[in-house]
Amino acid sequence: MIDLESIKDPSFIKDLSIKELYELCDQIRQFLIDHISVTGGHLSSNLGVVEITVAMYYVFDPEKDEFLFDVGHQSYVHKILTGRAKDFTTLRQFNGMSGYIKRSESKYDIWESGHSSTSISAASGLMLSDETKRPIVVIGDTSISNGVAFEGLNYLGQIKNRCPIIILNDNKMGISKSVGALTKTFLRLRSTRFVRVTKSAFQKILPNPIVRMGHQIKRSIKGLFQNDNMFEDLGFDYFGPYYGNKLKSLIKLFERVKKNKDPLVLHLLTQKGKGYAPSENDTEGSFHGVGPFDPKTGIEYNDSPDKISYSEAVGNYLVNKREKEQFFVITPAMKNGAHLTKFADAYPKDFIDVGIAEEHAAVMSAGIALHNKKVVLLMYSTFAQRAYDEILNDIARQNLKVIIGIDRAGIVGEDGETHQGLYDVSMFMGMPNVIVTMPRSIEEAIGLFNYAFNVDKPIVIRYPKSKELKKDFDYNYVCDLSWEIIKEGKKGIVLGYGDDITRILNIANDNNLDITIVNARCIKPLDINMLNNIFKMNLPIMVFEQVVSSGTLYDKVLEFKEENDYKSKVFKHSFDADTIIPHGKKKDVYVAYGLSDDEILDWINKKIN
Amino acid sequence: MIDLESIKDPSFIKDLSIKELYELCDQIRQFLIDHISVTGGHLSSNLGVVEITVAMYYVFDPEKDEFLFDVGHQSYVHKILTGRAKDFTTLRQFNGMSGYIKRSESKYDIWESGHSSTSISAASGLMLSDETKRPIVVIGDTSISNGVAFEGLNYLGQIKNRCPIIILNDNKMGISKSVGALTKTFLRLRSTRFVRVTKSAFQKILPNPIVRMGHQIKRSIKGLFQNDNMFEDLGFDYFGPYYGNKLKSLIKLFERVKKNKDPLVLHLLTQKGKGYAPSENDTEGSFHGVGPFDPKTGIEYNDSPDKISYSEAVGNYLVNKREKEQFFVITPAMKNGAHLTKFADAYPKDFIDVGIAEEHAAVMSAGIALHNKKVVLLMYSTFAQRAYDEILNDIARQNLKVIIGIDRAGIVGEDGETHQGLYDVSMFMGMPNVIVTMPRSIEEAIGLFNYAFNVDKPIVIRYPKSKELKKDFDYNYVCDLSWEIIKEGKKGIVLGYGDDITRILNIANDNNLDITIVNARCIKPLDINMLNNIFKMNLPIMVFEQVVSSGTLYDKVLEFKEENDYKSKVFKHSFDADTIIPHGKKKDVYVAYGLSDDEILDWINKKIN
Repeated sequence: MIDLESIKDPSFIKDLSIKELYELCDQIRQFLIDHISVTGGHLSSNLGVVEITVAMYYVFDPEKDEFLFDVGHQSYVHKILTGRAKDFTTLRQFNGMSGYIKRSESKYDIWESGHSSTSISAASGLMLSDETKRPIVVIGDTSISNGVAFEGLNYLGQIKNRCPIIILNDNKMGISKSVGALTKTFLRLRSTRFVRVTKSAFQKILPNPIVRMGHQIKRSIKGLFQNDNMFEDLGFDYFGPYYGNKLKSLIKLFERVKKNKDPLVLHLLTQKGKGYAPSENDTEGSFHGVGPFDPKTGIEYNDSPDKISYSEAVGNYLVNKREKEQFFVITPAMKNGAHLTKFADAYPKDFIDVGIAEEHAAVMSAGIALHNKKVVLLMYSTFAQRAYDEILNDIARQNLKVIIGIDRAGIVGEDGETHQGLYDVSMFMGMPNVIVTMPRSIEEAIGLFNYAFNVDKPIVIRYPKSKELKKDFDYNYVCDLSWEIIKEGKKGIVLGYGDDITRILNIANDNNLDITIVNARCIKPLDINMLNNIFKMNLPIMVFEQVVSSGTLYDKVLEFKEENDYKSKVFKHSFDADTIIPHGKKKDVYVAYGLSDDEILDWINKKIN
Repeated sequence: MIDLESIKDPSFIKDLSIKELYELCDQIRQFLIDHISVTGGHLSSNLGVVEITVAMYYVFDPEKDEFLFDVGHQSYVHKILTGRAKDFTTLRQFNGMSGYIKRSESKYDIWESGHSSTSISAASGLMLSDETKRPIVVIGDTSISNGVAFEGLNYLGQIKNRCPIIILNDNKMGISKSVGALTKTFLRLRSTRFVRVTKSAFQKILPNPIVRMGHQIKRSIKGLFQNDNMFEDLGFDYFGPYYGNKLKSLIKLFERVKKNKDPLVLHLLTQKGKGYAPSENDTEGSFHGVGPFDPKTGIEYNDSPDKISYSEAVGNYLVNKREKEQFFVITPAMKNGAHLTKFADAYPKDFIDVGIAEEHAAVMSAGIALHNKKVVLLMYSTFAQRAYDEILNDIARQNLKVIIGIDRAGIVGEDGETHQGLYDVSMFMGMPNVIVTMPRSIEEAIGLFNYAFNVDKPIVIRYPKSKELKKDFDYNYVCDLSWEIIKEGKKGIVLGYGDDITRILNIANDNNLDITIVNARCIKPLDINMLNNIFKMNLPIMVFEQVVSSGTLYDKVLEFKEENDYKSKVFKHSFDADTIIPHGKKKDVYVAYGLSDDEILDWINKKIN
C-alpha cells in the first residue's frame, strides 16, 4: 500500500513492480470515489484514465515529456501522482484545488484549458519552441471531433522527425454519448481491433520489392491487416485500437510508441466510470460532473428537492412549446447539462446534438433560419465564446431569426475561471440586430422565450446556473422587452437584470430600503422611455451586473446620460476586464467578490446615504 | 455568341448545345478578365470555376437545388449566369454589386458568407429545414481544412437518405499555396486519379458473397481500385478526383452524382487562374484579390508608387527584427496579404502559415509563449473574430506573452461588410491582461512592436489597410504606451488613435482649428495621467474611433468621467452596434459614413462652437 497523500512527486512510480502498479490503480480508484462522493467533481472520466495516467508516469519521463490533458477535468489521477492527493478535500472549493489543470499548482501542470480540443494545437506550439521536449496529449473521442482539434491535427500531422504522441482516449462518450460521423469511424476501428499489425511493424516485415510496388498496392495489402483511417490521411502513424484499462499491455504499448520517430495517434478504448458500477452504467453523462453523492448507491444528494434549476425549467418549457408548434433545438454537447433529454426523447427529429462543435451549431442554426423555420440554439455562456464569429457574421449580420439560449450565464461556481459566464453580454452587445435579454425569474424566462418565438430578429435569452422554488409555471406567459419597476422608493434606483435583481428586491424588502428597483430585462435595445423616467427622478442610479463590464448596461446608461445631459450619478457593480474569477462554491465566490447579500446591502446603503 | 448582359435568369442554359456551352465558358472567361482588370476583384478563383459553375446550372435545377459558394468570392460566374453581367462595371463599388454572395441581389444567392468554411454547416441547416431542397456546396481545398468545415462534415456525413453534394474545388491553392497535412492527402488522391471506379459503382459489380466477406476485406479489395480517404471515414460517398475544367466530362459526372442517394464529396481538380497566363503562373496568390491591372501584362496599376502600406512596412520590420533576435511568426493564411513572404523566405523555420485555421494559430501561439519564446500572431481584424475564445481563454487568461498583430483594422473598402475590421477593439477590451494599441503612423507601429517585444503580457497592435509615403524607417525606434498631445489648442480636445488621428491633425492644421489633439495610442490600459489633464482643461472632448463602439475608448472615457466627477462634455464619432457598413472604395464609404475630411471638420466645428 502506498500512502497517496505522502507522494511528493511522480518519481516513486518508476520503482514499483507491476503488481504494485496494479494495487496503485485500485487504490487511486477507491480514493477518487471516496473523495468525489464528498466534494463532487468529475468522476467518470477520471475513473476511465487511471491506467493510462499511471502507465504514462511509469513509462515516460515527466521531466522531459510534457503531458497535456485536453479539457483538463480528467487530470485527477495526474494530480494524485504529482503530489496533490492531500488537496482533494478542497477539490473545486474556493481557495482549494482546481478541478482542472492549473499551472500555479504544479510544475507538472503544463497546459490550462477548460475548453475542449485545444491540446493538440498547444502541443504544436510547445514542440516547435523547445526541441528537447516531447508533448504527450490525452484527448477524448468527442474532443477530437471539434474544429480546433482538427486544425491542430492538420498542422501536427505534417511534421516529421518529431514524435509527439496523441493518446486518443475513446470511451464512446464525450460528456454524454458521442455523436457525429467520426464516431462511426471509431466504432468501425473498434470492431476490427482483433487485427493489430501496425503500419511501422508491418513495413518492417514486408520485403522491399513489395514496398516498392507503390503506394496503391501497399495501401491495399496493408488494408488487409490494418484499418486506414483519417489519422493516417492527416499524416500520423496510427496505432490501435487497444484496451486502455489493461495496465500491463498498456505499459508495453507505451514502451513501443516511445521509440516512434514521427507524430502518432495511439487509439485506446477505455470505459468511462471504470470500476464504479453506477458510473459504468451511466449513458446520459450524469456522472460526468457530479455533486456530492452516496457512494453506496451513486445517488446524488439533493439538498433542495423543492427547487428546480433554470436549465431544467427551460427544458420542460421547450417540450411543452413543441407540443404546440414545430421548431428545432440545436446544442453543442449540452444535451444533459442543459436538460434537453426530455425534448430529445420526445422529438428526436427536431433535436440535434452536434457534439462539441459550437461553430457548426451556430452556422447550422443560421441555415435553418434561412428557410424561415424556427430554431433554438442552446449553449453555455462560456462555450458561446467559441462561436463569436459565426453568431456575429452568420446569424446577426444576416439578421436571421435564431433564438439563442445562453445557459450558465454569470458565475458558475466550482468549474471556475475557464467556465465563468461573464463575457457573453459584452460579446452580444456589439453585434448588429441582436436582442439581448436576461429574465429575473423562471417565469420571466418562459415569457421571454414565448416572446422570442414571435420576433423577427436574433434574440439572446441568458439565464444563470441557479434554482428557484418549484411551482406550476404558466407556459403560455408572454413577456415583452420593456423594463419594469418592481419596487418604488425615494433614495436611489437600482437597475439590473437576471435573478440578481430579484435577489436585490428581497434584500431591499428585508431591510426596508427606500429604493426604486428596475428590472432591465432587455439590455439591447434599451428601454428609452424608462431610462428617461429614471434620470428624471434625479436619484443615484446603481447599475448591477454580474458580468465583465465592457460595453454592457453600465456603459449604455452612461452613454444615454451623456447624450441627454442628465445629471444623476451612476454607479456600477460588475467586474472589470482584468478580473479573473476563480473556482469555488457560488456562495463563497460571492463573498469574495462583493456579491453576498450583506455586501450588496452595504453597497446600496453607501450610494444612497 | 450569347449576350451575357441580356441574361435574365439561368434557365437559358438548359437549351444550349455542348458546343455553345464551350463558347459560353470562353466568353465568360474573357468577360471576367475584361471587367476585373478595370474594377479589380477576385480573378484567379473565378477563372478556375467557370466550367464547374456552367455545368452546375446545366445539370442541376437552381429552382430546387440550392447552390452555396463557400466564402463567396468565387461566385462571379454564378452572378453572370443569374442575370448580373451588366452590374460588373459596379463590382465592389459603393452601391454597386458585391464581390460576395448577397441575398438582396438575387434569389439565387442563398448563403452569405465572406468568412470561409461555413458552407457545409449552412447546407446542413438548409437540408434539415426543407426536405424538398438539395444543397450543393462549392468549397475550396483550403477552406475545407478549417475547423468549422470539419465540424460540418462530421455532422453531414452521418446523415443518410439525403443527398447533399459537396464539390471540392481543389486548385492546390487557398489564397496562396495550400498548407497542412490534408493538402498531402489531396496530393496523394490527385496522383492516383487514373483509377476512378467509385464506391457505389464498384459495389454494384461486386458479387454479393464477396460483399458479405465483411468490411475488412471489402475495404482492402476496394482499396486496389479506389483510394479510401478522410471523406469516407466521415461517412461520405467519395467520387474523384476528376478534372474540373473539362466541361463535357464534368456534365456527365454531374448527371451521375445527381442520382446518388447519400451525401457525397465530389473531388475536382481545377486550375486557379485558368485561361489567363499571368494568373495561371501565380503561386503566391497575387491574383487572388487584385486591384485594376493591365490585362496584357497582368501587372497591377500602382497609383501610389511613392507609398507603402502598413502591412508591407510591418513585414519589412519583422525581417529586420529577426536579424537581431529569434522569434516566431504565425499566420492563418495571410502570408501574402500581410506581406510576410520576405520573412517566410528568409526564416522558413520561424514562419508558420497554418492555413485558414485562426483558432489553431492562436492556441499554437500560446503554446510557444508557454516556453517563453517570442511569437507574433498576425491576422486580419475580421478573421481574429474566429479566435475570440482562444485569444480570451488560452492567451489572455493565462497571461501569455503573444504579440498579436491585427492587420486591416477599420474600414477595409471593397471587400465590404463581412470583412470590416470594426469589432476587434470591442473584443479585446473585455479580455484580461491584454494591452490594446493602435499606432498613428508606420513609425509608431514599429515603435509599438519594439515595445511589445519587451513586455510580459499579451499585446495587440492593430493597423489599418492604409498607405503612407515611403521613407527610411528607424527600425530601432521604441514607443511606450503613454498618450501624446500632438497639437495644442483652446477650444476642444480630439482624442483618438490610429491613422485617423494623424488625418485629424492634418485637417486641424489645414483649417487652423484651435484644438488640442491627443494620440491615445494605447486604448487598454488608459493613460490616467493624461485623462486627468484632459478633463481638467474643461473643454469639450471629442472621441474619434473607427470601430463599432461597444466598450471601446468612448465608453472608457465616460466611465472615467463618471468615476471622477468631471464635467467636460464628451462626444463620440464611431459606429453603433447596429451599423453594418457595406463595400465600396474606402473614400466613398468614408463620405457615406461621415468620415470624409469635410465631414470630420464639420463635426469638430459643431462641437467646439
